[in-house]
Amino acid sequence: MNASTPRIALVGAGPGDPDLLTVRAARLLAAADVVVHDALVGSGVLALARHDAELIDVGKRPGQGVAQDLINLLLVRLAAEGRQVVRLKGGDPFVFGRGGEEALQLAEAGVVFEIVPGISSAVAAPAAVGIPVTFRGMSAAFTVVTGHRQHGEQPIDWHALALVGGTIVVLMGVAQRGAIARALMAGGLVGSTPVAAIHRATTDLEAVVRCRLDQLADTDVASPATLVIGAVAALDVRRTQAVEEASEG
Amino acid sequence: MNASTPRIALVGAGPGDPDLLTVRAARLLAAADVVVHDALVGSGVLALARHDAELIDVGKRPGQGVAQDLINLLLVRLAAEGRQVVRLKGGDPFVFGRGGEEALQLAEAGVVFEIVPGISSAVAAPAAVGIPVTFRGMSAAFTVVTGHRQHGEQPIDWHALALVGGTIVVLMGVAQRGAIARALMAGGLVGSTPVAAIHRATTDLEAVVRCRLDQLADTDVASPATLVIGAVAALDVRRTQAVEEASEG
Repeated sequence: MNASTPRIALVGAGPGDPDLLTVRAARLLAAADVVVHDALVGSGVLALARHDAELIDVGKRPGQGVAQDLINLLLVRLAAEGRQVVRLKGGDPFVFGRGGEEALQLAEAGVVFEIVPGISSAVAAPAAVGIPVTFRGMSAAFTVVTGHRQHGEQPIDWHALALVGGTIVVLMGVAQRGAIARALMAGGLVGSTPVAAIHRATTDLEAVVRCRLDQLADTDVASPATLVIGAVAALDVRRTQAVEEASEG
Repeated sequence: MNASTPRIALVGAGPGDPDLLTVRAARLLAAADVVVHDALVGSGVLALARHDAELIDVGKRPGQGVAQDLINLLLVRLAAEGRQVVRLKGGDPFVFGRGGEEALQLAEAGVVFEIVPGISSAVAAPAAVGIPVTFRGMSAAFTVVTGHRQHGEQPIDWHALALVGGTIVVLMGVAQRGAIARALMAGGLVGSTPVAAIHRATTDLEAVVRCRLDQLADTDVASPATLVIGAVAALDVRRTQAVEEASEG
């Protein structure tokens, strides 16, 4: 390794299945001295780290998480110690999860780092159950939004979103699903709009629930889940029957 | 290999860098007898195929492409021949590119197949130049849309999109960039909204152009490029200076 090799990599862990890590991510994980990971990163992915690597769980769980400032400080400190660090985030580092803030903090501290994108659940969770987020004649756009509003977040105009005409994918939105459904229907989406909720896609715990938008509030959905809202949510391109039903609707 | 192993895989090739293939995609590519690929899939990725694999370019170039029906027929035929087939699509198979239609055609023909998601340029191209598509306090959503309208596509309401309040990512939109900018400004986006255009991200040809939305029509942008429209387009989290400039704006 030469002096210019980044000692820290912000790495996307993908949706769950270790085979859906990128080649680059798998290589960095296998070489890391320290892996600083979120709670949602599964054991299958962490098993790719060296057996003597230090694993640090900084997962932000409701009411007991590690503050973002402390995570940033930890990363800068570990880099200063000269250890090879992988900061492993579920999905993609820049699709929510505050990877941009962590990167900025490292840049401000003068730490050289690398960004390795990951497969986001926003696209891969629907794909795992046969739902393409775009489909000709059905959806020519998709919007990815988080249901989990944090202090300082920009507000989303759900009414406008209902009018765009593409697929809506909501991450971290299980708890807010009733309010989201109401806002989208107030914005003009019909109550019969198909919805699919995919729990822990690409893992052994994967499960999908399908319903209508006006049933979403009262439908049991295990968290975490990716919510897909729009015509494509009725598709299953792995099978012909579900699609025929959808095109009749 | 047992009888239930899919003989066809619809595989996302990612944004360009072979290291950004998934582990699963790289493994399937190395084992394939035939690779049916789009024009945008780069030589670096194709080099991961076996030296004796048959490579079939079905790239749809303006005015001379292979019809989608023929691609679908070809895939079904190759599967029937019992050959191990990788259908390799740039980015993710279900983010435009009509992967959903190809999957459906295979299902209707009774062909068992596997879907392997890929890293989409929609997120990875901005990330490659330090732009996070979401950033706390700046963007809590992103919409991915294609600028290339095909017959039968659902229309996008650009006015509504301008009101949503998140980042807008346009794929295949270089030729339409003037019309897209006008529609978004008519919908309410201010002319000073930052834009970044990233050409062939994660390859040796990567280049980025930054401008304002009201300059986009008159700014030279090499095709293909990913357009990023919104406050985050002024960021570069790899460096502190660009971000400071952006937060002053």
